[in-house]
Amino acid sequence: MKIYLDNAASTKIDSQVIKAMLPYFDQKYGNARSIHQFGQEAKIALEESRETIAEFINADSNEIVFTSSATEGNNLALKGIAFANRDKGKHIIISSIEHPCIMESAAWLEKQGFKVTKLKVDKDGLVDPSDLEKAIQKDTILVSIIFASNEIGTIQPIEKLAKICRDKGVYFHTDAVQAFGKLDIDVKKMNIDLLTTSSHKVYGPKGVACLYVKQGIDITPLLHGGGQEMGLRGSTVNVSGVVGFGKAVELCRDEMKEEEARLAKLRDKLIKNILRIPKTYLNGHSKKRLSNNVNFRFSFIEGESLVIQLDLKGVAVSTGSACSSITLEPSHILLATGLKPEEAHGSLRITLGRFTTEQDIDYVIKVLPKIVKDLRDISPFK
Amino acid sequence: MKIYLDNAASTKIDSQVIKAMLPYFDQKYGNARSIHQFGQEAKIALEESRETIAEFINADSNEIVFTSSATEGNNLALKGIAFANRDKGKHIIISSIEHPCIMESAAWLEKQGFKVTKLKVDKDGLVDPSDLEKAIQKDTILVSIIFASNEIGTIQPIEKLAKICRDKGVYFHTDAVQAFGKLDIDVKKMNIDLLTTSSHKVYGPKGVACLYVKQGIDITPLLHGGGQEMGLRGSTVNVSGVVGFGKAVELCRDEMKEEEARLAKLRDKLIKNILRIPKTYLNGHSKKRLSNNVNFRFSFIEGESLVIQLDLKGVAVSTGSACSSITLEPSHILLATGLKPEEAHGSLRITLGRFTTEQDIDYVIKVLPKIVKDLRDISPFK
Repeated sequence: MKIYLDNAASTKIDSQVIKAMLPYFDQKYGNARSIHQFGQEAKIALEESRETIAEFINADSNEIVFTSSATEGNNLALKGIAFANRDKGKHIIISSIEHPCIMESAAWLEKQGFKVTKLKVDKDGLVDPSDLEKAIQKDTILVSIIFASNEIGTIQPIEKLAKICRDKGVYFHTDAVQAFGKLDIDVKKMNIDLLTTSSHKVYGPKGVACLYVKQGIDITPLLHGGGQEMGLRGSTVNVSGVVGFGKAVELCRDEMKEEEARLAKLRDKLIKNILRIPKTYLNGHSKKRLSNNVNFRFSFIEGESLVIQLDLKGVAVSTGSACSSITLEPSHILLATGLKPEEAHGSLRITLGRFTTEQDIDYVIKVLPKIVKDLRDISPFK
Repeated sequence: MKIYLDNAASTKIDSQVIKAMLPYFDQKYGNARSIHQFGQEAKIALEESRETIAEFINADSNEIVFTSSATEGNNLALKGIAFANRDKGKHIIISSIEHPCIMESAAWLEKQGFKVTKLKVDKDGLVDPSDLEKAIQKDTILVSIIFASNEIGTIQPIEKLAKICRDKGVYFHTDAVQAFGKLDIDVKKMNIDLLTTSSHKVYGPKGVACLYVKQGIDITPLLHGGGQEMGLRGSTVNVSGVVGFGKAVELCRDEMKEEEARLAKLRDKLIKNILRIPKTYLNGHSKKRLSNNVNFRFSFIEGESLVIQLDLKGVAVSTGSACSSITLEPSHILLATGLKPEEAHGSLRITLGRFTTEQDIDYVIKVLPKIVKDLRDISPFK
């Protein structure tokens, strides 16, 4: 028994994506900057993927900067805007439930003399647009709010938040890693200036991602080099990775509507059944949430024990972000929603994906109650 | 006819490398930070590759930081050392023949208030160790010299240069992208503090590379995030890429001695025969040069015309670095060796690799003289 329900951490690469990538390993292996035929065929593939991804979010293709990861995209967005615009102002606004790479980039910028405001969230993890409005100052250069939470799945009112920024002339960036491929995103209509995505969360390869940067925006590269990616990112482009990412986006685009409905149904079945376990609560918003995300907390139990017990039963889940899973700190996201540290420790994240079946969900519904009961029986906290 | 002789720009991935990578696409697809079985099998593979690469250069495995590219490694080395050590000093020394990503990172650091000295090179592209000795000042924090030139193949006296830095208490970094997998590298014996490599130059995938960082060195991450890579680089690690890189290094290690002798023989055959064309010169050192690198200049001809004509004959070569190939500027490396701009424009780089055969070389020896003659016949420069 092997059931993978940690799709927010990483996903299985779709077989069609692998098939698209393979020729770029040992047949079309040129450097996309080379002027010979090997270079040209690499460049053509690169630009096709760029076009596919751009169209998917209603951007222009020269607004898509390929990066190696969402972490790189988020670092580039924050540091790149900060360094390029510090003469205009040194104030940056983020939310208190951002991914660690946003939190840490902001913390590092604070050491470089920038000021960072962290907007609070309500018990469901939502940012209040009026809080953002009040927080924007004369020297604010950038606002960065996560599109949908990687841990609790809550979807922010991105359009409202972005509109406030556009009206005030402040750049708006969103880490859309978990939303991309699941929710409709139209950067033009939504007034988004910068948007981070990642390939390995949408059944594409690890090691490739992109940052949308609206044309005309002043941004300093993070990787200085040979002028690749419209001068915004040095490095030989990872051609096979980009090709795989493009194919992955194509597949998401074509199935998105149906797939989201299918996953939401499975998600709701899981929520309904697991909440029957006494003293069990849902973290994150009950309606404004990603179709593939469930995050529970179980009183008297450590989330990590649940993950280990489920792993022994062949089910892969997590307590929260894989990027924070090594630390023993309670999730800063759950704390921001008002949970006490002991409550935050009892959380379990189950994230569904393309390869999740109803049988997988039924199996979790079957085994989890007993695991919770057994752990509670030996819990010193109850 | 398809002959690839641009191995300094990128290489064909070895079939054994592809085979090693494949399971990590759709079977072992966990995030290496996840605590379940999918995560653990990814982490094990990651650490095995780290160990292989560390051993290959006589480093400890916790000194190997996986990055997405050599450009990222070089940016991390320069900016990371600069930001972490600016209280000790703000002076950095590089050579005048570094890769664009070192030149551009240094130029950006100058804008941030650092001082950069560029050491001159002789006509063969060699740095004089006594020049380095004289250039080191009290506030020098870092010296970065390329191990072997990506354009002209000249190998620097790295051991001497590094020893000078060690004795003076200055960090020594080397961009070893072209040397790695071809020359013996022992970071301990050679007193190297930081060393950049890349996978796609040694028959591994694009999008993965590593920076060796000697234990105890103070360096600021370029990508802040979830604490991956000993806290030195945030991002979900590109597991399949790292596995491929590890396998690629294993293959290089096992064949290195024989392969270098084989390539040097082919290289010398090519040099000997092509230099018979009148007014044709070798760029770079005649002996202290990479076994796979040939760089000629042909009076009265533009290098780009040669590349295009050879491409039409099915032979992929370049004028210089792929990272600089888009610009119309003459190579800063050739200018640094004392060539005039018109001479620097007439250069052709031919770089051999694992899949290069003697027939390939014989074909170039056969077609190139006629191409040179035809281009000279119509040249306005002669």
